[in-house]
Amino acid sequence: MIVLFTDFGVEGPYTGQVQARLQQLASGVPVINLFSDLEPWDVEAAAYLLPAYAAGFPSGTVFLCVVDPGVGGSRPGVVVSADGCWYVGPNEGLFAILARRAGCVECLELPPAVGVSSSFHGRDVFAPVAARLARGLRVEAEGVSTACLEKPDWPDDLLRVVYIDRYGNAITGLRASKVDASQMLSVNGHQLRSAQTFSDVGVGEAFWYANSSGLVELAVNQGCADRVLGVEVGTVLSF
Amino acid sequence: MIVLFTDFGVEGPYTGQVQARLQQLASGVPVINLFSDLEPWDVEAAAYLLPAYAAGFPSGTVFLCVVDPGVGGSRPGVVVSADGCWYVGPNEGLFAILARRAGCVECLELPPAVGVSSSFHGRDVFAPVAARLARGLRVEAEGVSTACLEKPDWPDDLLRVVYIDRYGNAITGLRASKVDASQMLSVNGHQLRSAQTFSDVGVGEAFWYANSSGLVELAVNQGCADRVLGVEVGTVLSF
Amino acid sequence: MIVLFTDFGVEGPYTGQVQARLQQLASGVPVINLFSDLEPWDVEAAAYLLPAYAAGFPSGTVFLCVVDPGVGGSRPGVVVSADGCWYVGPNEGLFAILARRAGCVECLELPPAVGVSSSFHGRDVFAPVAARLARGLRVEAEGVSTACLEKPDWPDDLLRVVYIDRYGNAITGLRASKVDASQMLSVNGHQLRSAQTFSDVGVGEAFWYANSSGLVELAVNQGCADRVLGVEVGTVLSF
Repeated sequence: MIVLFTDFGVEGPYTGQVQARLQQLASGVPVINLFSDLEPWDVEAAAYLLPAYAAGFPSGTVFLCVVDPGVGGSRPGVVVSADGCWYVGPNEGLFAILARRAGCVECLELPPAVGVSSSFHGRDVFAPVAARLARGLRVEAEGVSTACLEKPDWPDDLLRVVYIDRYGNAITGLRASKVDASQMLSVNGHQLRSAQTFSDVGVGEAFWYANSSGLVELAVNQGCADRVLGVEVGTVLSF
Repeated sequence: MIVLFTDFGVEGPYTGQVQARLQQLASGVPVINLFSDLEPWDVEAAAYLLPAYAAGFPSGTVFLCVVDPGVGGSRPGVVVSADGCWYVGPNEGLFAILARRAGCVECLELPPAVGVSSSFHGRDVFAPVAARLARGLRVEAEGVSTACLEKPDWPDDLLRVVYIDRYGNAITGLRASKVDASQMLSVNGHQLRSAQTFSDVGVGEAFWYANSSGLVELAVNQGCADRVLGVEVGTVLSF
Repeated sequence: MIVLFTDFGVEGPYTGQVQARLQQLASGVPVINLFSDLEPWDVEAAAYLLPAYAAGFPSGTVFLCVVDPGVGGSRPGVVVSADGCWYVGPNEGLFAILARRAGCVECLELPPAVGVSSSFHGRDVFAPVAARLARGLRVEAEGVSTACLEKPDWPDDLLRVVYIDRYGNAITGLRASKVDASQMLSVNGHQLRSAQTFSDVGVGEAFWYANSSGLVELAVNQGCADRVLGVEVGTVLSF
């Protein structure tokens, strides 16, 4: 299985162009759009979402991960092998948290892209590599130290909003397993208690809970947390 | 074929997570996103869309239907068999109109979900059931009276807007077969006549017509009916 | 491979309904959504996007192309064979630029649609034809002169914005191969120089570049060109 984790958009041609390339190079391999609308250029937000949303996929899954503000520049592309799955994309920090948490990590650095577009490495560089990996083929790349993946100044958990979903729920970069259920969370002057799920609080009430991928999420029962709390991607929270 | 009929969003991870689960549990079964952007939590609107948009699918199709304001609460999940197709989802009224109109209906109640997320039964409860049905396997569930599906106070046709499409057309819960073509419809002070199709009226003119799924739809030729008429999901219409 | 190139929307039921029809009629043929959100009813904009984004697909690809302000009217449907690929859709100019640039073009005119919806020929007329072509079957249609595809007053390159992507980049109908890299482009009073790619200019700087499909695109490094330059689909540019 190839899983797309990008900021390409559900609209427009980019996700389709990548899928078409994968179809040509790895015919018959299922392709799943996990995220197509990560916050554009926000590598840090994506880095904290990736290990949470990649968890649970079967061994051998290939994640094609692109949030790439430096496309066309000199940042290298990498292939990361972590706990049995493959991750392919530009190395601008996207794999930092994944690698830090994984038990077993290896890293390959892709050679500089030649003869391809300078603005769409997702289609021209990373999709062909993902297709090869999905087919069990060798990728021409050099083993390098996983230290190149790290962002030493990034915390283990990120106390800010990293994604707003369709319902207005605000997903944070904080693992729920790191917070006690009795802990209040503070955001924009609102104090939020935790609840198991939506139906445990009154309609219209704001709360935080451990979402279905293990991250702390700010929510309102049958309401839009982003509007009620005035939060957006980047909004900081605190204990 | 498995058909998704949800409010999970075309954006974000939820539709992809469900597709990934289906891929793992029913590999090779085609999955179609029919609706991913039903009005959040508006079970009634979805209930009137379902029989109109489920019509025409081949016998044996499995519809995974989730609009679930009560997720995590005590509402049971059901499997509905209606006129040769399967419908799986939470029982909060979503299948009421479908069951009322179907010639042959049976209902199974799923046992309470144990050991799964309390906020994403679409992925953790209903997708596995849909996968089993699509593979022709037995689902562990108890036969119950179809009376549990009913919402006795809901009308046979719903005179309100249930979906606004990309063009700004306003789909209603009213079957076109129940309205005479000479009938005027009234909405927000506008009187609308019927037409066969867009090109039958002047550019910019508002009208109603029998849409391609048999529902009354408010439209404007090459214009946006939602803006011209000031309607949104929930807006009431009358004769 | 069947490729969808439409204004049906990524949201709503239409793309899913077409995919379901294709699944029934051409089971096993991969379907790619290239564009689902072309500007509604803007046939001219779509006509300049089509040859740019159809390039590079393998011989035998079937493009299902629908931007159809005249649906239900008397405009005929056509099947265009151009340089080894098939294109199916309503003949309102959508194939004019593609045909003009292709080396080898043939055109079939579909018989008038009978017994189908008057508002959704994408599902009821063109999808069945695309499915037949993808399966290598004959389509009942009459060969006609390709002159019927032409829009003689449309220029070879269109100096206006034809699509705004998710990042706010403004794609134009002007082929980059027709402009010298030293050429300044003018839009809404802004003078834009060209650059190879985003990382070649300062963060926040506006520029134009040859995008990954060969069209001139107006962009801002890590910013939204549509907002910075005040452009939308239809905005005119000049040298």
